[in-house]
Amino acid sequence: MTEGSRTWAVPGGRVPERSTGAEPENTSYDMLCLLNTGREDASISIWLYYEDKLPVGPYPIEVKAERVRHVRLNDLIDPEAMPLGTEYGILVRSSVPIAVQYWRQDTSRGKAIATAMAMPLD
Amino acid sequence: MTEGSRTWAVPGGRVPERSTGAEPENTSYDMLCLLNTGREDASISIWLYYEDKLPVGPYPIEVKAERVRHVRLNDLIDPEAMPLGTEYGILVRSSVPIAVQYWRQDTSRGKAIATAMAMPLD
Amino acid sequence: MTEGSRTWAVPGGRVPERSTGAEPENTSYDMLCLLNTGREDASISIWLYYEDKLPVGPYPIEVKAERVRHVRLNDLIDPEAMPLGTEYGILVRSSVPIAVQYWRQDTSRGKAIATAMAMPLD
Amino acid sequence: MTEGSRTWAVPGGRVPERSTGAEPENTSYDMLCLLNTGREDASISIWLYYEDKLPVGPYPIEVKAERVRHVRLNDLIDPEAMPLGTEYGILVRSSVPIAVQYWRQDTSRGKAIATAMAMPLD
Repeated sequence: MTEGSRTWAVPGGRVPERSTGAEPENTSYDMLCLLNTGREDASISIWLYYEDKLPVGPYPIEVKAERVRHVRLNDLIDPEAMPLGTEYGILVRSSVPIAVQYWRQDTSRGKAIATAMAMPLD
Repeated sequence: MTEGSRTWAVPGGRVPERSTGAEPENTSYDMLCLLNTGREDASISIWLYYEDKLPVGPYPIEVKAERVRHVRLNDLIDPEAMPLGTEYGILVRSSVPIAVQYWRQDTSRGKAIATAMAMPLD
Repeated sequence: MTEGSRTWAVPGGRVPERSTGAEPENTSYDMLCLLNTGREDASISIWLYYEDKLPVGPYPIEVKAERVRHVRLNDLIDPEAMPLGTEYGILVRSSVPIAVQYWRQDTSRGKAIATAMAMPLD
Repeated sequence: MTEGSRTWAVPGGRVPERSTGAEPENTSYDMLCLLNTGREDASISIWLYYEDKLPVGPYPIEVKAERVRHVRLNDLIDPEAMPLGTEYGILVRSSVPIAVQYWRQDTSRGKAIATAMAMPLD
């Protein structure tokens, strides 16, 4: 069985600058959800692409075999914290096949949510 | 004709802990919508993946030939009720090809909705 | 060039029963958006699948060559008007390759929106 | 490695006519997010399809190698500004493989957001 793909893209990232409501449940965020249904641990590298500078990465993430992991992009700080309110795209590379979903929560005015599966590139 | 795939993934599950507004129309939920356009009944197993424990399942679901079925994840109780406010991912396996869509309704502040097709893995 | 697929599925339909705000801009709806970028007109059949009765259709739709068409599911009346607040799934069959996107607008409490590409089945 | 596809479709465009809240953060929009993870610049043509007239385009866009670009459809003016509140579909053609995501922000009543990956056609 195939458990997914090794390369995934999310072109439409931008963490809302503003949040309203009690923290942390109401903080605005962009999130990647990484599902590894296989029997091998996944070593994952996240690269962030910008409109006017070189890509930044890798942000290393590990997802153990038969586990899921939800990572807020605005929590990534090494090699570089992502600026809020800035357009970016995401490339995810994994050592083993995984599945990847993208979420945004925008609480700048009430709570708005949106999601899409990342686009498999291999 | 192919009616879909037999294996589907949704990495980004998390049932909102809070609901506002009159029940049951306004209850927060995560939902799977399973469409069987074929002529054979589908025997479906749902597995839930977590960040820090073994996968839980199978949750058995049947979708008759030429029928659809909408299942709220928070209604699954056997083998184990899913905890609210907890990150999880979903793997769906079916005996015949089906199509699968994911929905979230979050009424923690007003009503927010989001949807994505599940990711076919075969 | 391929302009898309001939068969598409949307498992997660349900037209919200309630609408708030001025009509028609704020009416709750489920919608299919059909894009025909090819040079031949598309003869399209929509079939609706339910949880507890036989599929209903075909609802015939034509989309001319190099045109788009947005169809609210709640406007379909022949062979049978769709009941509001009822779970259903959609199968779209086209005589030529097209692309299909699904939208929901839910104004039962403020305005909430969600979209997904339909799932290509061929 | 494949970095995506050269042809993408978004059938469900319609820029909301109304916006509420402080500009420009709260302006309603439809947006395309174009990610070029490759080593060659991408020359991109956007075509807009309507319900009752010929397609309009090309709207030329360049996305440099290893860059992302977010383009609001309502900012496209040459060869023709897009009318608000009008149903349209989008075809994207690129000289090199890219990935494409679609976003809508609708602030006609509070803030609602929705997203989907564009549909790859090749």
